[in-house]
Formats: sequence, C-alpha cells, structure tokens
Amino acid sequence: MSYALEELGKRAVSAKYILQNLTTEKKNQALKKAASLLKEHTDEILKANEEDMILGREKGMKEGLLDRLKLTGERIEAMAEGLLEIVELTDPVGEILDTFERPNGLFIEKRRVPLGVIGIIYESRPNVTADAFGLCFKTGNAVILKGGSDALHSNLAITNVLRMALKEEGITEDAIQLIESGDRAVTTAFMQLKEYVDVLIPRGGAGLIRSVVENSTIPVIETGTGNCHVYVDKDADLSMACSIIINAKTQRIGVCNSCESLVIHSAVKDRFLPVLAEKLREHHVEMRGDERVREVISDCIPASEEDYGKEYLDYILSMKTVDSVEEAIAHINRYNTKHSEAIVTNNPESAEKFLNGVDAACVYVNASTRFTDGFEFGFGAEIGISTQKLHARGPMGLKELTSYKYVIRGNGQIRG
Amino acid sequence: MSYALEELGKRAVSAKYILQNLTTEKKNQALKKAASLLKEHTDEILKANEEDMILGREKGMKEGLLDRLKLTGERIEAMAEGLLEIVELTDPVGEILDTFERPNGLFIEKRRVPLGVIGIIYESRPNVTADAFGLCFKTGNAVILKGGSDALHSNLAITNVLRMALKEEGITEDAIQLIESGDRAVTTAFMQLKEYVDVLIPRGGAGLIRSVVENSTIPVIETGTGNCHVYVDKDADLSMACSIIINAKTQRIGVCNSCESLVIHSAVKDRFLPVLAEKLREHHVEMRGDERVREVISDCIPASEEDYGKEYLDYILSMKTVDSVEEAIAHINRYNTKHSEAIVTNNPESAEKFLNGVDAACVYVNASTRFTDGFEFGFGAEIGISTQKLHARGPMGLKELTSYKYVIRGNGQIRG
Repeated sequence: MSYALEELGKRAVSAKYILQNLTTEKKNQALKKAASLLKEHTDEILKANEEDMILGREKGMKEGLLDRLKLTGERIEAMAEGLLEIVELTDPVGEILDTFERPNGLFIEKRRVPLGVIGIIYESRPNVTADAFGLCFKTGNAVILKGGSDALHSNLAITNVLRMALKEEGITEDAIQLIESGDRAVTTAFMQLKEYVDVLIPRGGAGLIRSVVENSTIPVIETGTGNCHVYVDKDADLSMACSIIINAKTQRIGVCNSCESLVIHSAVKDRFLPVLAEKLREHHVEMRGDERVREVISDCIPASEEDYGKEYLDYILSMKTVDSVEEAIAHINRYNTKHSEAIVTNNPESAEKFLNGVDAACVYVNASTRFTDGFEFGFGAEIGISTQKLHARGPMGLKELTSYKYVIRGNGQIRG
Repeated sequence: MSYALEELGKRAVSAKYILQNLTTEKKNQALKKAASLLKEHTDEILKANEEDMILGREKGMKEGLLDRLKLTGERIEAMAEGLLEIVELTDPVGEILDTFERPNGLFIEKRRVPLGVIGIIYESRPNVTADAFGLCFKTGNAVILKGGSDALHSNLAITNVLRMALKEEGITEDAIQLIESGDRAVTTAFMQLKEYVDVLIPRGGAGLIRSVVENSTIPVIETGTGNCHVYVDKDADLSMACSIIINAKTQRIGVCNSCESLVIHSAVKDRFLPVLAEKLREHHVEMRGDERVREVISDCIPASEEDYGKEYLDYILSMKTVDSVEEAIAHINRYNTKHSEAIVTNNPESAEKFLNGVDAACVYVNASTRFTDGFEFGFGAEIGISTQKLHARGPMGLKELTSYKYVIRGNGQIRG
C-alpha cells in the first residue's frame, strides 16, 4: 500500500508541472465542464451516496454526521455552483509581487506560483471533495484527497466525474487523486509523503487536526478550532453587546467562528447580565460562569477551568468577569485558539489595546466573530481558516494556495 | 527538564506580548546597546569560547568545525556590526498590507505583526546566537535558541551579554533564552513545545534539518540544503557559461548556493567541455560525468545516480548530457533540492521554458547561483534560505519573520 501511495505521489508531481503552465482560460473551461458533468451524473453520485448512508446507519452513525454525509440533488447542484463561482475568481498565478534591480545589474522578479501538490485530509463530508479540487485546480495545484472512510463511495463517484471532466478537456486526470484506503496506517504514511507533497491541509475537527500536526512531516496549514470570545467593556453599548453575543453564540452553533465565551467588565455586569441571560434562556443556551457572574444570574452553573478552554460547538456559553481591558486580554490570550476575538466598546483607547494585545487571526471591535469567513471577507472562496501564523492566517482564499519564486535575469554576473 | 522547557516557553510567551508593542526606536536602542556591550565584554566571551575550543580539541573535532566554533576579537566585532546593520533596516512590524471595506460596513485591515515566539536550532556556530537574536528582536519576536552543545560556553556568554543589554534598556530579558541542556531528548521536547512556540527554524546541515522536520510538531521553515545546477544550453555564450560555472562551483565551496552539477546540451558539449575541464582542473575540481561527457573528458570519473542527487559541498562537480531544454528541466526537477538553478542561454524561448518549468526558489538566466543570499538580494540581512513553499521561499529577511492579523472595525454588525 505504501507503494501505491508513492505512485499517487509521483503522478501528482507529474501533474503539477502541467497544471502550473495552464492558462486561466483552460482552467476555467475545465471547471465549467466539471460543473456540468456533476449535474449530469447526479443519479450516479446519489446512488453511491446511498451506499454510504446505508453503511453509516448500520454502523449507528449519529444524525449530525449522517446529515453531513448525505447528498441530495440540491446539494450536488450546490457543488456544481461552487465550481462555477471559482471560475469567476481572479487567477492569482503569475502575478508579479515585486521587481527590483540590483547594483550589479541583476533584475529580480518575485512571481506568484502554485504551491505544487496539496494534500487535503477531511472528514466524511463529500461536498469538500469538489470544493477542494476546484480551489486547488484554479490555483494550478495538483491535489491528493483523503476523505473520511464513511464517505468513500460518494467521494469516489465525485472524483470519477471530476477526472472525466479533466479528460474531456485534455488535461491530466491526476490533477485530482483520491486515496481509497481506509487504513489508518495509510493515512499516516500519506502525512509523510514529503518527497511529493508540498503542503498538507487538514479540514475537520480538533482530533483530526491534532493527528495531522503530530504525524506529518509535510508542512501543514492548521485550520479550524475556534474558542472565540466576546469581551463586553465597561464603555460598551450594552444593547449592541447583547445582539452581538446572541448572534455570535446562536446564529450557527457548530462552526469555528461562533462565540464560546463571554468576558464581562465588572462595572457593567449587574446592568448587563440579567438582560443577556433572558435572551440566552430564550435561545436555550446553558450558562457557565464564575462567582461574580453567578451573583447576578441565579441559574448560571459554575464554570471550571476546563470550561474556559473549551470549544463547545453547542448551546453553552462560559462567562468570566474581569476588572479591566488588560485582564480581559490576558484571559483571552491564555485560553483562546488564536482564531477570532471581539471587544464591544465605545472607548477608542480600550479598542486599540484589545486589537494590539489579543493574539488572534481576526480581532474585532463592535462586530460579531461570525464574520471570520472567506466569503464574508470578500475572497469569494475559502479552503479553511488558518489558526497558525506561518504562511496564512485567518480565512484562506485562492492566494493562500500559492507560493512564489524568484526569477533572476543577468548578463553573465558572477559573485566576487 | 521538560518542566524547565515549559518554563522557558511560558517566559517567551510573556515576553512576546511586550515585544510586539515596542516602538522601532526602543528596539533600535536596545540593539545598539547590545552591540556596544558585546564589544565591551569581548574578553569574557573569548574566555568562554576558549573553554569550548579546548573541549572541542580534546574531543577531536575536525579543523573545519573548530574554525566555525572559534571566536576572535575580530569575529566578535563583526557580530556587533551585524547588530548595528539590523538597526538600519526598516522595521516591518505594523505595516498595513491591505485594507478593504465590505458592503455591510465592516472595515478590514490586514496588519503585519510579529510571528510571536521563534525557536532556532543551530550547530556549533556561536555567531548565529547574536545574529538570530538581532533579526528576531527587530521584528518583535521572542526567541528561544538551541545551539550546538560544543558551543555552549560561548553561547551562554553571548546570551548573557545580550540579556544584560535588554535589562539595561528596561526590556524583558526573556526576549532571548538559551536552552543549556545538551540532551537530545530535551532538543526533541523543544521541537514539540507547540503550545508556546509559533515557528521553528533549523539552521544547519541536512541531518539537523531532517531531524527537525521529522520530530517537530511546531510549524517549521526548512532552510538550507542546495543541490544547485547550471544548465548550458545549445544557444549559450560558452565563455559566459564557463565563467558562471567556475564561479558557482569554486568561489565558495561549502555553501548551499554553490553549484553541484552541470547539465550540458549535447550540441555544444564537444566544443565546451574541453575548455571547462581545463579550468576545473586548475581549480582541482573532480569531475564525475555520464558516458557522453566522458567521451570528451578523458579524466572524468563515471557519475552514479547517487552523484546527481548529491550536495557535495566539496571540489566535485557532477555532469549530465541532455538533448533539449525540456530534458534539462526534467533532470533538474528530479534531482534538485528546490534551491537555486541557472540556465546559460541567449535563446529567450529556452530561458522562459526553464524559468517556468524548473521548480526552485530561485531560477536564473545567465548568472551564477551564488547570488541566492539575503544580502545579495538587498534584504540587508538573512535568517536563512527557505527551500519549502509555505510562508517564505528563497532568502528570508525581516519580513519573512512576521505574520499578519486582520483587524476588523464595525458598528454592531451581526451575521444574518
């Protein structure tokens, strides 16, 4: 099996040299073909998905997971639409990022190029298959996918259609390859296919990401987990604060940019918390707070240390009282996952302290953390949200799937 | 000992929150103080270095390694000068990389920020200690250093002086910390101090880099190894080609941007190789070539597959004959380390093919590969040469030691 993996790697490398030189027009044509073939082959894909659904139900998969696994005509239509949206985006490859001439006459150009071969490891969400392919392909990268085993039939069906589209357009089918084995040892070996794969991107929950970070020898872009806070300052517009917290907590529960924790300034807690608690109860949000919070909210459960570090992805909110913006910043920096953090305040000085002091990809003043998203940022697409500092931070669009090279032109220069 | 490491990590994190908010003036002042204290404490540093040298000689360290380990008054002066050169460089922190307003009124700013805590693992070269500190400090990063054990006394003495300078300037001394243990297990544990360290940069030979890549859970910037080629095209100016190859091969032997392999077009080999061979012999360069090369150069040794993949760092040149620029590109992409590659040609079409097709950080037309260097590129400094595609590629200066964050200002926006 490791031999087979190596074969996939070699094929991807051959493909990358072809893809890096494709024109934007050619790439867009292939994406349009892929969109149209996905719609054309809806029945086949649905049939394959039904096999996965049957096996999933037999295994006793939870409803939430089954819902993510399930495809419908509408969802396949959405996949195809997703590819057409990528067609509309500007191709970043070939962009000249900088040029400079040296005193010795060397002319240096910094040129944007594809990353090369991208590996993506994801859970049993078949829609990621088409989406990841589209983003990688538009940026001239070959992609090797390892999706969750529970979605294997669906992923195979989708991959086959995408490869069919490439073939019809006369482009190497190896622009997309799927690892079919469900063996964990194969997944681990994939994470170490450093000779062929330039970057590995895990898309999924904390466990998946940890496993990739621990096992990969390929450079990783860590995406995802978000223990996001909203801090209500003493100078906050409390009605705005309430609407931001309710939005960030409840508008969508299971996403990384939702709010997991409220940090409240002691000067406003007595006025603010009763109003907020009422709204939270309406939305069936369980409250877990420190002692000073519980003095005001009688039905608030005591929060443990563990609560403050937790990404609930559920109708639960932890609450912490502080006496200053500095204390709020220290609390957040201690417990956050460097994703998205917000302050609600009308005090410009507190806002600046927060923006400078909090270590996170996205720091907000007077807005919901839910805006950390490639589409909301206007990138038109998103491969994930990076929570590391190397290469890309926050929402990653097409540009974040590229690297650069230096092109240097001389007339015989040698070093003295 | 792992407890002590954790303590170092915590201190570095505390330091990073201070360093990220220092003004450029303050940082420059501390760098100047450090430079002046290094000179002032020359005797102490030399004494510590002498201890390392004695132990090194007792252990039977090779001359080359002893030379890298050795400090002199002049070398300490050069360290201090290096810090003063960093003072002169533009501080990249705080630069606004982009701003955009969304239709919902959110105002987004992409702001350059320090990486945070940088770990650097390097060999027994004490000059790296001051250099790495200077670059990390100017960019607002805390640094944890793990130098080669053979340089421990020297590194400690230098670190103490640098910390003294910080203290005198009223800046946290934990901006620089040195791991004193020579235990390999501690080094491995350091590579996994992910909770505290944002980026790990190995500086050294292939073995060190491999070990870091294999063991680190912290994001790594891979630097260094260079199996660089010069390709002499059929349309090359042969006299220029000869001077470029001699320069790239012999101007400095033990560096990553020196040339290890010649790729020669069959159409010019009979004219070119005898002239080149004569020059190579003058420079005592051993030649290892394929059969077609050996038809022309009688004293050329047969090259094995292994030769083509090798970074000699020695007076040896491998030689390979090809029949087209495409074949040259394929050969180079198969064996290179993605560092620096050059074509010598007067044919613009061949040049473009080469520049587009070769996968390397730096691709040259008609110039020596020896120019891949932060100073030669005009960056004013260099922390290393990245051979990976994530984050930074090629020579890394100050900007490459930074990340960015998104600062988002609203007036109560929530997501619908």
